Amino acid sequence: MRRFVANKAKTLIKTSVFSSSSLQNRNKFQSCSSSLTSSRFLGSSYSFSSMVDDYKHTPLSRDTLNPKVLKCEYAVRGEIVTLAQKLQQELQEKPGSHPFDDIIYCNIGNPQSLGQQPITFFREVLALCDHPAILDKSETQGLFSADSIERAYQIVDQIPGRATGAYSHSQGIKGLRDTIAAGIETRDGFPANSDDIFLTDGASPAVHMMMQLLIRSENDGIFCPIPQYPLYSASIALHGGTLVPYYLDEATGWGLEVSDLKEQLEKARSQGTNVRALVVINPGNPTGQVLSEDNQQAIVEFCRQEGLVLLADEVYQENVYVPDKQFHSFKKVARAMGYGENDIPLVSFQSVSKGYYGECGKRGGYMEVTGFSPEIREQIYKVASVNLCSNISGQILASLVMSPPKVGDESYESYSAEKDGILSSMARRAKTIEEALNSLEGVTCNRTEGAMYLFPSIQLPQKAIEAAEAVHTAPDTFYCRNLLNATGIVAVPGSGFGQVPGTWHFRCTILPQEDKIPAIVDRLTEFHKGFMDQYRD
Amino acid sequence: MRRFVANKAKTLIKTSVFSSSSLQNRNKFQSCSSSLTSSRFLGSSYSFSSMVDDYKHTPLSRDTLNPKVLKCEYAVRGEIVTLAQKLQQELQEKPGSHPFDDIIYCNIGNPQSLGQQPITFFREVLALCDHPAILDKSETQGLFSADSIERAYQIVDQIPGRATGAYSHSQGIKGLRDTIAAGIETRDGFPANSDDIFLTDGASPAVHMMMQLLIRSENDGIFCPIPQYPLYSASIALHGGTLVPYYLDEATGWGLEVSDLKEQLEKARSQGTNVRALVVINPGNPTGQVLSEDNQQAIVEFCRQEGLVLLADEVYQENVYVPDKQFHSFKKVARAMGYGENDIPLVSFQSVSKGYYGECGKRGGYMEVTGFSPEIREQIYKVASVNLCSNISGQILASLVMSPPKVGDESYESYSAEKDGILSSMARRAKTIEEALNSLEGVTCNRTEGAMYLFPSIQLPQKAIEAAEAVHTAPDTFYCRNLLNATGIVAVPGSGFGQVPGTWHFRCTILPQEDKIPAIVDRLTEFHKGFMDQYRD
Repeated sequence: MRRFVANKAKTLIKTSVFSSSSLQNRNKFQSCSSSLTSSRFLGSSYSFSSMVDDYKHTPLSRDTLNPKVLKCEYAVRGEIVTLAQKLQQELQEKPGSHPFDDIIYCNIGNPQSLGQQPITFFREVLALCDHPAILDKSETQGLFSADSIERAYQIVDQIPGRATGAYSHSQGIKGLRDTIAAGIETRDGFPANSDDIFLTDGASPAVHMMMQLLIRSENDGIFCPIPQYPLYSASIALHGGTLVPYYLDEATGWGLEVSDLKEQLEKARSQGTNVRALVVINPGNPTGQVLSEDNQQAIVEFCRQEGLVLLADEVYQENVYVPDKQFHSFKKVARAMGYGENDIPLVSFQSVSKGYYGECGKRGGYMEVTGFSPEIREQIYKVASVNLCSNISGQILASLVMSPPKVGDESYESYSAEKDGILSSMARRAKTIEEALNSLEGVTCNRTEGAMYLFPSIQLPQKAIEAAEAVHTAPDTFYCRNLLNATGIVAVPGSGFGQVPGTWHFRCTILPQEDKIPAIVDRLTEFHKGFMDQYRD
Repeated sequence: MRRFVANKAKTLIKTSVFSSSSLQNRNKFQSCSSSLTSSRFLGSSYSFSSMVDDYKHTPLSRDTLNPKVLKCEYAVRGEIVTLAQKLQQELQEKPGSHPFDDIIYCNIGNPQSLGQQPITFFREVLALCDHPAILDKSETQGLFSADSIERAYQIVDQIPGRATGAYSHSQGIKGLRDTIAAGIETRDGFPANSDDIFLTDGASPAVHMMMQLLIRSENDGIFCPIPQYPLYSASIALHGGTLVPYYLDEATGWGLEVSDLKEQLEKARSQGTNVRALVVINPGNPTGQVLSEDNQQAIVEFCRQEGLVLLADEVYQENVYVPDKQFHSFKKVARAMGYGENDIPLVSFQSVSKGYYGECGKRGGYMEVTGFSPEIREQIYKVASVNLCSNISGQILASLVMSPPKVGDESYESYSAEKDGILSSMARRAKTIEEALNSLEGVTCNRTEGAMYLFPSIQLPQKAIEAAEAVHTAPDTFYCRNLLNATGIVAVPGSGFGQVPGTWHFRCTILPQEDKIPAIVDRLTEFHKGFMDQYRD
C-alpha cells in the first residue's frame, strides 16, 4: 500500500493550489488586505521564514497517526480507482490521449452513476417531503402522482410536529420504522418490531456500530467470508479487531461449508482469538451467490451452538436473477427453525443503495437488531444517539423501498415497469458478461445468481506473475491496471476482497447500461487476448 | 449511570412486544404457517424449553461489550430525555395525568422540532434536486421561484452524469465543494480550496473521523473546554482516548485563559498524557460566548507553539446575537496572523443543523482540513472512503447555506425576511430567558452572545443537595428531574457537559417559539420558587 499512498500523495500535491511558495505569497497579500490585526504574533519567534518547509509544525505524521487507520484498506476506492480518475482527467484535458474515449467504472455498485434512472415514485415522495408547502397546491397534482402525494402526506403526518427538518428519534422516525417492520413481516411471514429497527445512513455506519460494540481488542475476532466486501476488513481494522477468515468454495458456486467454519473457528480459538460474530453476505458480494435455505439453516445452527452474533448483510435482497434461487432473510430462516428472539442474536443490514432502486447517494438503510438483551440494546441506542439520527430523506426512502406502491395505486404500473425493466436488464447483463468471461483463455466465472458483481478467476501465466513482481505489484492488480490502461474499464483486483492464496480474481459490476455491454465485452476480450499473447508461458 | 441503564432497560422490556412467553407462542404459530421447512434442527439438542429464559444464548453482555462503549455518555439524549419521553407517552395515553399539557424539549438544538420553519429557498432547491424530472415542466414555474429552479439546474449539472442518486466522490461532489470554498473565501477574505473540504453527514461524523485519526490509546489526550458539548467526551471515550479539560471562566463570560491552558497541558504531560489536539467551540456550546479576536489569536499561537491540532467547532457561526461581537473563523484568524497552510493543522467543522436554517434532519455538514501533510490527508480521504460519501441532499444543503440567495435574486427578499426573522427572534428569546433566569434566587446566567443555549449556574441549597444524594442522583440532575416533572420543561444537567466541581448548572435552549416563551418563563419561575421554598437551608 505504500506505493498507493505515494502515488496519491503526488496527485494531491500536484492538484493542490497550496504549494508552499504560492501560499506564502498569497498569505502576504491576504494578511495585508485583512481587516484583522496581525500585530501581536508576527513579532514572535515564528517568522515567515519558518513557513516554507513542508508541514514542519504539523504534529501529525504517519508515525504518530492511529495505526489502526494506517492498517485499514478499502480497495473499491483504492489504487486502481485513483489511476482511473487520473486517466479521466487526462482524457478531459487532452481528448484522444488514451486508446479509449471514456472510463467505465465497474469498480463499485453505484448504478445511477452509470445511467440507471431512479424510480419515479420514490423521487416524487422525497421531493414532496422536502418541500411539504407544495402538497396542497393545485399545480402539484399536475406534476406528481396521486399516490405519491398521499404517501407524502402520510409520512409528513408521521413526523412529530410535521418537522421534516428536525433530528428524529435516535433510531429513526417511529412511523417510518412501523412501515419498515410491516414490510419485513410481509417479506418474511414472521413478526417484526419497530423497536428493533435502527435507521442508518446506509448500511456502512450500521456495520461500524456493531463492530464498535463487539471489538475490544485484537483478541476479538470477527468471522468473515473470503472473498468479502472490504467494508468488513476495513471496519474490523479501524476498530482494532482480528478478521477470522472462512473461505467460500469457488468450485461449488461459492458455497459455504460449515465444516470449514468449524475448522477455522477451532484454529482461531487455539490461537487465542475470541471469535464474537459471523458475517454472512447474502446475496454474496463480490461473489454473487444466493445461499440455499439448507446452508442458511446450517449457519444459524452453527452461530447458535458456538455463541456467535450473526451479522447478516442482506443489502442485495432484491437482486436475485435466477429462477432456481430465492432470497430468504436469516431472521425468517431462524424463526422457521423455531428459534425466537431470545435464542440467537441476529442483525440484518439493509440499504437503499442496492436492489432495483440503487439510491446510493441518499445514504439510507437500517439494521434490524434481534436477540440482544435490553441492556445491550440500550448501549446500541446510546451509540446511535451520539450521532443524533440518520438523514431523514434516507429514512423516508428506507420506508418506501420496504413499502412500494401496491396493485391499484396510481403509480403501480409505472413503478412495476421501472422495477422489472431494471432487474431483468441486470439479469441479462450478468449473463452476457459471465458468458464472455468464461469464453476467455484461463478465465472461469461462476454465474451471478444475485447482487451486482462478477468475480472471475484468472489463471495468470507465470510470465505475467513475474512481470507483476518486477514492478512490485500483486499479479491481479497488475492485470487490472493493464486492463484499465488499455480499455478504460475499472475493475477491482481480487486481493482487495481476499482470495485463496495463489489464485487471482477481479471484481466487475454488471452495472454499465445494456447498450454499452457489447462494446465492453469486445474491449475486454481484445485486451485479454493481447495480455495472454504477451505473457503466455 | 447504572441507574439510567436500569430504568431504560425496564422501559424497553415494557414496550417490547417480544416478551419471552408471547414470543414463544408466536414462534410456534409462525413456524407452522411458514413455507420454510423447519425439520432438521428442531430435533437437535436445542429444544423449545431452552428458549424461555432471557437471552441465555446471547454471547454479548455488559461484561463482554467493548468497555469504551460502556464508558461513553451522551447527556443531551440521556436520562432526563428518557423520562420526558415517558411523560409524553403518559400524557398521550391519559391527558391530564401531569400538571402540564405538553413536553417542551429544551434539551437539544433542534429548532424545527419546536416549530421553526425551514428556509423556503433551500427546500425548493432540495425538492427540485430530488426530482429533477420536473425541472422543465411548466407547472414547476408556478410552484417554485425562478432562482431555485436555476440553482437546481446548476447543481444537477455539477453532478457527474446528473446522477443525483449516485455515490459521490468520497469528499463530496466537486462542484458543491467549489461553491463551499467560494463561500468560505467570501466569509473570511482568505483563499479556500475545495480539495480541503470533506462533506459529512452533519458535523458529528467529522469529529469522530478526526478523533479516529488522532487517538491511538488512552495515553493520547484531547484538550476540551469544560463545559463542553458531550459529542466530544463521547467520541473521545469511544475512541479510547483521554479528555484533558480546560475550564472556561464563568466569571468573565466563559472566557478562555491561555494561562489555564498551559497549566492544564503541563499537568497532563506530567501524568504521561500526550495531548494531540485542542477542541474549541465558538460560538460556545453550551456556554453561548463568542470568543474575542485576541482570544482566538492566543489560542492559535498556543496550538502552534505546543504542536496541537486545532479542532474548531464553528457550527454556530451564523448564530451571533450581540452587536459588540462578531464571528471570526479560526482559519481567518490564523491567516491574518500570517500563518499559512504549512504552519498550523486546523480543522473547521460546519453543519446545516444550526445557524438560522436549523436543518438538523438533513445531516449535512463539512470539515475544512488545512495544515496536514499530503500523506495524512490521504489517510483522511481513506477513512472518508470507507463510508463512501455523505448524503447528497445534505451535501447540496451545505453548499446552499454557504451560498444563499443574493441581492437581485427572486428569492432574496423572502429569504432575508425569513433569516432575519429567525435570528432576531432567537436574540429576543435569549434575552428574555436570560433575564428571567437572572431574576431567580441563587441563579446567575451569562448572556447568550451566540449559539442556541443558556447555561445558568444554580446555587443549590444544602438541603436540595442532600435530597439528591438520598436518591443517589447528582444535584443538578435532581433539579432538572424536578423541573421536568413539575413543568414539562426538558433541560440537561450541567454534569453532562462538565462544570467546576461543586458548581451546578443546566443547559436550556432558546428554541421554543416566541409565543411560548412567556408561559415557559412563568412555569420555570414558579417551579424555581417552589423548589427553593422546599429546600431553602
